[in-house]
Amino acid sequence: MILTVTPNAALDDTYEVPDARTGEVNRVAAVHRRPGGKGVNVARVLHGLGHEVVAAGFAGGTVGAGIEAGLASLGVPSAFTRTAGESRRTVTVVAAEVTVFNEPGPTVTAAEWDAFARDYGRLARDAEVVVLSGSLPPGVPPDAYARLVRLADAPVILDADGEALRLGLAARPDVVKPNAAELARATGTDDPAAGIRALRGAGAVVASLGAGGVLAATPDGVLRAELDRPEAGNPTGAGDALAAGLAAGLAGGLPWPERLRRAVALAACAVRSPVAGEVDAAELPALLARVTVRTEEAVSEEGHAARAHE
Amino acid sequence: MILTVTPNAALDDTYEVPDARTGEVNRVAAVHRRPGGKGVNVARVLHGLGHEVVAAGFAGGTVGAGIEAGLASLGVPSAFTRTAGESRRTVTVVAAEVTVFNEPGPTVTAAEWDAFARDYGRLARDAEVVVLSGSLPPGVPPDAYARLVRLADAPVILDADGEALRLGLAARPDVVKPNAAELARATGTDDPAAGIRALRGAGAVVASLGAGGVLAATPDGVLRAELDRPEAGNPTGAGDALAAGLAAGLAGGLPWPERLRRAVALAACAVRSPVAGEVDAAELPALLARVTVRTEEAVSEEGHAARAHE
Repeated sequence: MILTVTPNAALDDTYEVPDARTGEVNRVAAVHRRPGGKGVNVARVLHGLGHEVVAAGFAGGTVGAGIEAGLASLGVPSAFTRTAGESRRTVTVVAAEVTVFNEPGPTVTAAEWDAFARDYGRLARDAEVVVLSGSLPPGVPPDAYARLVRLADAPVILDADGEALRLGLAARPDVVKPNAAELARATGTDDPAAGIRALRGAGAVVASLGAGGVLAATPDGVLRAELDRPEAGNPTGAGDALAAGLAAGLAGGLPWPERLRRAVALAACAVRSPVAGEVDAAELPALLARVTVRTEEAVSEEGHAARAHE
Repeated sequence: MILTVTPNAALDDTYEVPDARTGEVNRVAAVHRRPGGKGVNVARVLHGLGHEVVAAGFAGGTVGAGIEAGLASLGVPSAFTRTAGESRRTVTVVAAEVTVFNEPGPTVTAAEWDAFARDYGRLARDAEVVVLSGSLPPGVPPDAYARLVRLADAPVILDADGEALRLGLAARPDVVKPNAAELARATGTDDPAAGIRALRGAGAVVASLGAGGVLAATPDGVLRAELDRPEAGNPTGAGDALAAGLAAGLAGGLPWPERLRRAVALAACAVRSPVAGEVDAAELPALLARVTVRTEEAVSEEGHAARAHE
């Protein structure tokens, strides 16, 4: 079982508003409502591929009930810890441009955090892999991810940004998966090759570079995995599909090159889907065949030691 | 007891997004969530003034549960009929400009409509006044309001637009309350004085003219009621406060001039409140004193006959 944790789960609404006008009253032509938040998206992708998965995190109020109902209707098992505060929504207005509005999320109390830590400890015991994903809502301790990494015996993939990532790294997660912007913010360098080497603490750093594929500093060396030609489509949710691919590869005991191949193929799959973050598993074999994985820097005794034991 | 009916009840979200940018990902600084829809707003105003009120209509899914929970937390009794389809949300983005997104609402099944008609028949029996308000969600019969007017013994105030208003008028509601735009659409004339005389079927036509107050064709003649000087503030929800004032006046057996005075004062109260559609009852006495009511055309035997018996 793969456990995903979404501390700031959301109900994602996409509004199709072809003639949207600022400053006016607009009729929404169509509404698409899906449970969301990064770890929820990871769970949905994994479930779609047939993996046993549980989505955990916080859910509160009727929006939280909507998240749970949404996952249930997709057949995705969930085990959220309740908050009194209501879970957040996001609204994506699809007009001539795509505009996103992200609510901050509920303020989580200390008692709710403690209850979650207990729920998580119990769930993590049954997990082969744990994926920790996304923003921390107000009230959650800033080092929440470090605490969750330490509470897990299973390998942990951490997909976070800013302070949550920085403090989470102190607990040595097995994998971190920053995108180019998150990596730049964390390391102060715009160069991903320098960034993955500079980001210390994780067992592996897998930098997702959009159409550029991934560049990863791993115990097996620095690897680059990319699609032969970029896919056009909807890149929303591709990062979460990538994380899902890493989790599946980890759980399946795949070696790093294969793990990255699978992750890049899944991300491309998500880009191709018109619906944000969904994958059509039937497309996977063809996409896998289009991924090349190159070793940019072989592992060395000192190199491996430098990365894994800092 | 005053019964309000909101066939297309909503959960209204107001997003404060000071630096909103189209085409980008925006963080919402603050979220205000309130149960809404025109009849719900009327019920909230009446409840705030101490009237016994019940809010009815359709509510479905977790959004519907949110509407009911929101009303319950305000202490407003509600008795919605459940739909399988989820109730709609609205999103109001407050940035440099105010932009509103209105979802269409759930598709109501024939069985759900029948269940509602039964619920409504039962509730209307205990009502002194019935207020029918707002849009009809998909699936509801287009002549829904006509049916509801006929099912009620108590006087009915109808606040609707377009087809819903046109077909509703066939059943002779006691009062219709179009705003200037709705009146123009219904009668083909931009001149409210002509419009209120042209709109046939209702016992009285109360046209709400924004800062211009109201112009009403009533059994007591054509009356104009306006504030001495316009109020500045948030006009959202003022129309529903006006309808609430008419309902309160009807229920209280006030003569038409006083009914209109109260309605205009309540609408001004709502404009003054920073929160859309809320009223501070403490401001009412001062506002009542600032409303003048003039008879623009006295009732005549034929005039009265012409309006009331068409």
